[in-house]
Amino acid sequence: MHSLKLPDFEDVLRAANKIAGYSVKTPLLKCDDLSEKLSAEIFVKAECLQRVGAFKFRGAYNRLSRLSDDEKKRGVVAYSSGNHAQGVAASARLLGIDAVIVMPKDSPKMKLQNTINYGAEVITYDRATESREEIAAKISAERGCVVVPSFEDFYIIAGQGTAALEAIHQAKDYGTVFDIFMTPVGGGGLISGCSLAVKALSPNTEIYGVEPEGFNDVQRSLQSGKIESNPKPSGSICDAILTVHPEPMTYTIMSRNLSGVLTVTDEEALKAMKYAWEKLKLVVEPGACVALAAILHGKLDVKGKKICIVLSGGNVDEETFIKALNT
Amino acid sequence: MHSLKLPDFEDVLRAANKIAGYSVKTPLLKCDDLSEKLSAEIFVKAECLQRVGAFKFRGAYNRLSRLSDDEKKRGVVAYSSGNHAQGVAASARLLGIDAVIVMPKDSPKMKLQNTINYGAEVITYDRATESREEIAAKISAERGCVVVPSFEDFYIIAGQGTAALEAIHQAKDYGTVFDIFMTPVGGGGLISGCSLAVKALSPNTEIYGVEPEGFNDVQRSLQSGKIESNPKPSGSICDAILTVHPEPMTYTIMSRNLSGVLTVTDEEALKAMKYAWEKLKLVVEPGACVALAAILHGKLDVKGKKICIVLSGGNVDEETFIKALNT
Repeated sequence: MHSLKLPDFEDVLRAANKIAGYSVKTPLLKCDDLSEKLSAEIFVKAECLQRVGAFKFRGAYNRLSRLSDDEKKRGVVAYSSGNHAQGVAASARLLGIDAVIVMPKDSPKMKLQNTINYGAEVITYDRATESREEIAAKISAERGCVVVPSFEDFYIIAGQGTAALEAIHQAKDYGTVFDIFMTPVGGGGLISGCSLAVKALSPNTEIYGVEPEGFNDVQRSLQSGKIESNPKPSGSICDAILTVHPEPMTYTIMSRNLSGVLTVTDEEALKAMKYAWEKLKLVVEPGACVALAAILHGKLDVKGKKICIVLSGGNVDEETFIKALNT
Repeated sequence: MHSLKLPDFEDVLRAANKIAGYSVKTPLLKCDDLSEKLSAEIFVKAECLQRVGAFKFRGAYNRLSRLSDDEKKRGVVAYSSGNHAQGVAASARLLGIDAVIVMPKDSPKMKLQNTINYGAEVITYDRATESREEIAAKISAERGCVVVPSFEDFYIIAGQGTAALEAIHQAKDYGTVFDIFMTPVGGGGLISGCSLAVKALSPNTEIYGVEPEGFNDVQRSLQSGKIESNPKPSGSICDAILTVHPEPMTYTIMSRNLSGVLTVTDEEALKAMKYAWEKLKLVVEPGACVALAAILHGKLDVKGKKICIVLSGGNVDEETFIKALNT
């Protein structure tokens, strides 16, 4: 892995310049209720308020804006369970690029519909029997379009890091330096990018990722020292973060920068969604709620600490949301 | 009414100083989807993200912080369907003041529970047969505590105006000056206070209020030129804004500064709640959604215009929220 060209903090700064004016500078909100309950200072970075309703716009726009004129003409293809799909589709439209998105048939309806609404061509597949990588590779070969990975990419990782860059600057308005920075983890693009900003600007801040129970490939990879896979591709309500395994770039960055990875159950994620609805007035999807769920359910001792929790997206169907409200 | 001492823009600026560090500077969010659909530039001021989940904290904290030391010792009494209740209860706790809150029995459970959680003593009454003003006056006489009105008050009005002060400054980050500024209207405290900031900083901006159909006391008052009352005290899902009639201060300010008042149905408010959930990822309560509902349902020609819509609160029970999602 020594030959990998990994992004660094300067690349996050460059990404911030690139996406400025297109991305939303999402608010960093203090959680009074939770801070009081846990004798801590808890903040959320509300990426559910990002363009397309998820942080994924940051990386996708950064990636697509670096394409050559020739590549832009040929268009892009991406595969995604839904949030990267929307990020790529919306970025492609802003940049005048054609986009094909390969999505699982069982993606949340809202994510499928939004991706179509942003003007992308959507091709669905069966998560249990088909390989999205193969479908995308075939489309790329046939049409000559560029594959835009969902996380294992220099510019995608750098782009996602802008969420932490903003949060750290916004924390200054509260007179706060974070002791702990937490995000949900799927393939690790968000936490890898964020870790570049956190370690550069606030080296003593500990970084934790959170995965769904039974889909803790990153937790096991960091424990064993090599890339480990999840035994199954689906089966959690946290559809946005059910990646099979990390890839060399995200694995390497996470190995260097993370203090640990925690897990939560689907039930805990649903309770966190309800908490965000009730106390934060934010709509957060299951996979985007896992870091909040970990804190709400005492998976980390946070007493006296200053903590930033990324709520990474809010694209959720009525049915699932009502399930959370009835939890 | 010539003897009324009305607040002015300077009082809004003083209120902003008073509440700084306690209130949330809520985000001004651009609504891409709606802007595109209506060929306009639509922003929301997300007061559902305010402390206590509604703008009411602004006025309540400003009012309570002006009490004399003697008054603070004697405590306060307020009546409210729920958001002012929470605003007064939370402000009283921050300032070390005892608070009694008189609330209708049929207030949303969340509002009742939160008010108790902030440490206030809650006394319930029957909206159909009892007068909250009389109950509060009796408590005030018995205990010597100060009555804190929900809108007809110099400092309350000035405090609510800080929402517009912030929004106008935040709009500069988007390079925007609003053509239209809209808020929900109950007793008129929010829109009166906001109008002081809007007319001082942006005199060409038109100001519109929105009421529930059948509870359009302000609309009729401004049309007839005198204070008119609603025929009934309850019967709309928009519980937060079912005030019986405006009072001299808010009536006078609204008469001077408003371009008009629109109305929406309960069904339209519920659809706007669902829209806010789906596209804005914000939890908004029915009464707080009426200005958004008016725009979504074409009650005002907004083509080519730059519009600020205040989403004034997000305290809503599961049952009502699920009703909105099933709309």
